[in-house]
Amino acid sequence: MNYPKGIKQISENNYIRYDNRGMDLENDINITNQYYIDKEIAYIYKKPTPIQVTKVDYKNGMIIKEAYFKEPSTTDYNGLYNGLYIDFEAKETISKTSFPLANIHKHQILHIKHIVDNNGIAFLIVRFKTLNKDFLLLGEDFINYLKDNTRKSIPLSYFEEKGYLINPSYMPRIDYLKIIDNLQGGKYGKEKEKRN
Amino acid sequence: MNYPKGIKQISENNYIRYDNRGMDLENDINITNQYYIDKEIAYIYKKPTPIQVTKVDYKNGMIIKEAYFKEPSTTDYNGLYNGLYIDFEAKETISKTSFPLANIHKHQILHIKHIVDNNGIAFLIVRFKTLNKDFLLLGEDFINYLKDNTRKSIPLSYFEEKGYLINPSYMPRIDYLKIIDNLQGGKYGKEKEKRN
Repeated sequence: MNYPKGIKQISENNYIRYDNRGMDLENDINITNQYYIDKEIAYIYKKPTPIQVTKVDYKNGMIIKEAYFKEPSTTDYNGLYNGLYIDFEAKETISKTSFPLANIHKHQILHIKHIVDNNGIAFLIVRFKTLNKDFLLLGEDFINYLKDNTRKSIPLSYFEEKGYLINPSYMPRIDYLKIIDNLQGGKYGKEKEKRN
Repeated sequence: MNYPKGIKQISENNYIRYDNRGMDLENDINITNQYYIDKEIAYIYKKPTPIQVTKVDYKNGMIIKEAYFKEPSTTDYNGLYNGLYIDFEAKETISKTSFPLANIHKHQILHIKHIVDNNGIAFLIVRFKTLNKDFLLLGEDFINYLKDNTRKSIPLSYFEEKGYLINPSYMPRIDYLKIIDNLQGGKYGKEKEKRN
């Protein structure tokens, strides 16, 4: 359903959803991150896409003539929030019932495990497009799921049980740091204490 | 001067230098980072090179047919050390007297400033090749230099005064986290306390 710009729509879940014709999760996150930077809340940025360069034309100013997209070995985003290391991958699915694990590569799982093991904050942001719902799932809970399950997808119920629903808002669009804030009082606060 | 593999040489500075024929700073750092990962000390990794893709052949399996190297807007390396956000750029110079600032782009300076402002640990590792010396210069001191000076290079004396000499060793080759460790007891320890 498309609404004219600026008109808000009360969704079936009672969240206020602003129309975002053509805007996808990546855009929403980029806008959110820019908001965090502008307001000096956090510095979180997108990593470059990994590309394997195989042919370069040096004569005409270093034009790459042949290259390949590499399988990503890290996540899309990382950065800093008040000294905390933040690292996440953002994915969309049109499924109404589960998040297909084919979306996350083996090296990315290892990357997330490394972050968790070294006391960083890693998570997935998964948008269930058809359901109009965005979830944050912590790296620990993601890794635990993989340990305990052989399914090729993570059911929605796991996100509902272990994840955190991100309520959409106008600005920032996807206020994922609010969730990290709440966790800091609990889990991350304790982790930090332990370290000092 | 080339020595057979494994033979050590006492340099004029009394550091033990192992022969590293053809090995450059980037290699030394990659090997050091792999050591940190293997020993579960830290997780620090190289970011992909930023490339602007302009033509893709979708028919034959997504081959990139035209692309350009972009000016880097962040640093080469980042990661996590016991929950601390680590971020640095590594550069070599053949100059014996100063480090040319043309080596660091405007956006990289802004990136380093963002890291410092958000309580992360940013630094440069600069190898003065001809002098056989590697220095770590903290982001704060780098930014302060730029504020106070209009020179197009940072003199060696500034590295000697504000920076930290990294003593080369066999493994890890460039133990830059040792320097961060020492600072933690002082500066970074206090910063962390302040945050909690």
